[in-house]
Amino acid sequence: MSRWRCPASILVLSALTGGSAAAQDRVTPAMRAEMESLVGAALTSSRAPEILRGLTDSVGPRLAGSAGDRAAVAWGVATLRALGFSNVRAEKVLVPVWRRISESASMTAPVRQLFAVAALGGSVSTPDEGITAEVVEADSLAAVDALGERARGKIVFIWKKTERRRDGGGYGETVPIRHGGAARAAKFGALAVLIRSVGTDDNRLPHTGAMDYDAKTPKIPAAALSTPDADLLHRALAEGRPVTVTLKIKTETGPDAESANVIGEIPGREKPDEIVLVGGHLDSWDLGTGAVDDGAGCSISIEAARLIGALPQRPRRTIRVVLFANEENGLRGGRGYAVDHASELSKHVAAIEADAGGDRATGYSWNAAPAAGAFMKEMEAFLAGIGADRFVKGGSGGADISPLLASGIPLLGLRNDSSRYFDVHHTANDTYDKVDPVQLNQATAAMVAMTYALAEAAEPLPRIPESDRTRRRPE
Amino acid sequence: MSRWRCPASILVLSALTGGSAAAQDRVTPAMRAEMESLVGAALTSSRAPEILRGLTDSVGPRLAGSAGDRAAVAWGVATLRALGFSNVRAEKVLVPVWRRISESASMTAPVRQLFAVAALGGSVSTPDEGITAEVVEADSLAAVDALGERARGKIVFIWKKTERRRDGGGYGETVPIRHGGAARAAKFGALAVLIRSVGTDDNRLPHTGAMDYDAKTPKIPAAALSTPDADLLHRALAEGRPVTVTLKIKTETGPDAESANVIGEIPGREKPDEIVLVGGHLDSWDLGTGAVDDGAGCSISIEAARLIGALPQRPRRTIRVVLFANEENGLRGGRGYAVDHASELSKHVAAIEADAGGDRATGYSWNAAPAAGAFMKEMEAFLAGIGADRFVKGGSGGADISPLLASGIPLLGLRNDSSRYFDVHHTANDTYDKVDPVQLNQATAAMVAMTYALAEAAEPLPRIPESDRTRRRPE
Repeated sequence: MSRWRCPASILVLSALTGGSAAAQDRVTPAMRAEMESLVGAALTSSRAPEILRGLTDSVGPRLAGSAGDRAAVAWGVATLRALGFSNVRAEKVLVPVWRRISESASMTAPVRQLFAVAALGGSVSTPDEGITAEVVEADSLAAVDALGERARGKIVFIWKKTERRRDGGGYGETVPIRHGGAARAAKFGALAVLIRSVGTDDNRLPHTGAMDYDAKTPKIPAAALSTPDADLLHRALAEGRPVTVTLKIKTETGPDAESANVIGEIPGREKPDEIVLVGGHLDSWDLGTGAVDDGAGCSISIEAARLIGALPQRPRRTIRVVLFANEENGLRGGRGYAVDHASELSKHVAAIEADAGGDRATGYSWNAAPAAGAFMKEMEAFLAGIGADRFVKGGSGGADISPLLASGIPLLGLRNDSSRYFDVHHTANDTYDKVDPVQLNQATAAMVAMTYALAEAAEPLPRIPESDRTRRRPE
Repeated sequence: MSRWRCPASILVLSALTGGSAAAQDRVTPAMRAEMESLVGAALTSSRAPEILRGLTDSVGPRLAGSAGDRAAVAWGVATLRALGFSNVRAEKVLVPVWRRISESASMTAPVRQLFAVAALGGSVSTPDEGITAEVVEADSLAAVDALGERARGKIVFIWKKTERRRDGGGYGETVPIRHGGAARAAKFGALAVLIRSVGTDDNRLPHTGAMDYDAKTPKIPAAALSTPDADLLHRALAEGRPVTVTLKIKTETGPDAESANVIGEIPGREKPDEIVLVGGHLDSWDLGTGAVDDGAGCSISIEAARLIGALPQRPRRTIRVVLFANEENGLRGGRGYAVDHASELSKHVAAIEADAGGDRATGYSWNAAPAAGAFMKEMEAFLAGIGADRFVKGGSGGADISPLLASGIPLLGLRNDSSRYFDVHHTANDTYDKVDPVQLNQATAAMVAMTYALAEAAEPLPRIPESDRTRRRPE
């Protein structure tokens, strides 16, 4: 649909559509020229890998409320200042505190095998001596219900493989097991829950992640086995002999702690009160150094804004980078932002989240009034050359910006190739070396073009209609 | 060089060479027909994956002298009996005992980062409070020498990447660092040694393996960091600021324990006293379940012999499967076999070791008198169809059979595609799921053909000349 693809038909279309051609023409030649130069800069002189390295190497793991989290906030403020951002500040957010102390699991019958295990985030402890019980298996939450009384006094093991897909869709199918397994099994008197890690790798590195208890059922310990260990347990159970497992988990929770959303701005030249928000989340799980989740998104966001700030002429609107607190186990940063900035949300013209890793961008999800489709078509055409032209309509952009949905702010989510993402996501393997700088730069290029276009376009995108201001999955 | 490749030239060659054609003709049409059916059986109805699963799932880790090692010997005897082998026995071997109790390492300055670390096999403990010291880096043993007095009172960190190669050659270049690093650094008063794992992966799973102390220098603790952790430490040191690490290792050694070489036979129909030995090693490192190292070699050897034993007519000579004890940290099994069987080594017509993983066979190393070359050419041609025709002359077949070199027994080593082998070798990731059954069956096919041919050929291979009966690397 872009001019260079089919110039004749576009010329005809322009003649036919008359007035509405203006709407399709949001991306002016001057904007396109600037976007081209920004893409070139992102691909050749990006500091995104260096920013990512700073966060992962010098801060490391940073679960909400931990010492690492506080170090990350300090790093964020110092980094944004050093890179020349304006109005840099840390906006206080209270976050929940949960801490992993120790964990172990082993099969004790019919043979002894030591498992690689990780408590799920929020899990309670086992007694000090652990829980030793026979294991019963299910392959879904519905199958846990079907176990019924057979779960009583047992360890319920939920075994389901997570499919590898470029769009990451396999995660959506198995993550409900992680969130809801414990509450479901507790209903029938299970003593603990083990799940096959929600991941696509075959490493003996378990995947942690958030889980939820239900006020109506007892809180029972919940942990993930690495995929090879889960598959071993699955094979042992398939033989039909009784299988016994010992699980020991020690965790603690504390009172809410202080954390912060870290913010910096590139003030707009004409409409500094109008804001294009771009960001990721600063917190990470505790096992790795949070490179793909979400150091990548933070570095992409920071670098995209920095590149725009370095232009001879800044765009019309302000670009606000927000590094959100506590996405992983509370969403307090995203929720707090929506509350704290309620009075200026009407001036937010768009929000983009980058929280799908550091591999190459494949496009965007977008949610705005249907009339924004013309602008999106233009951007698809522009981004086709770097392979980032798979746009899907719908969704809420990302967890941190989802609380903005209710105010109708157009929400975009950077989409990355997620084929490798769930290999390392929420594991000890989520480290700096897993991010390919070439792909990270391409993702930054996709981000910088969109951010600039939204900040420079003559008119803001039409806001999400009232009827669409509730969460749903992208189409 | 085979008939079907260039029939005309071979016919001419046969006519011209007269008597020597018999030597080239060791693989008779009848043998070839039997080998073809054995290859077919190995590829379609192999029990190698099932045997491997039995060892890894039901025994698991089995470092020499451990409870797992004893369970492995029992498994080996039971398995060979169940599969119908004759003369099944466990031949006692005394093995050294070393045990990992606990280990941890972290960077403590300029920032704190927790490392994934594993004590090298044989390492002494640190004091209970650990060793905390500044780190100095070297990239080779020679570079450790060059550090000289700068190593005194420090932790010496040897950082060198292991190259991924199909022939596994990268390992040979870096493994001397694992073996000799501690002794070298101790010479200059270093307190401990850390190495970058000798591995080709990027997982936070360190690679253990044997190391050697020198009687002339103090025994200092030695451990491997996972490759991502080693690279993080390397980057931190590259910044030029002082870097401090705390290392805690607790290990113990005990008196020699009883283990065994497990043996079973397929008796020959004509010359039962002549032996073709085929085997791998039964012990494994302690971190994983020893699937690629060397459960794969054991299962390939057992299944190759079992398939031959199931033929309507057994070959002339006896096939003896030997599952060697203690390859990893002592070679007591291989050495013990050579001593215990000294009186019948003259009746060993060949020995083949499988200890290069479970991926597809690429060929063989072979060491015998040069006249064996004609037979090897025939076998290369036969195995070309399954891609196992890369034969190299030289070497000693494998560690366990290398003590047989002095007696001149023709020695062969099954060569596998080692591209993936050093990703998991000696790590917690060495588990059943890492072996691809299709490739394991192909390797079994390559093994069964060679084993049968050696056991059935009219004449044994000419033995290794006296001048070649010392160890050297394959050509």
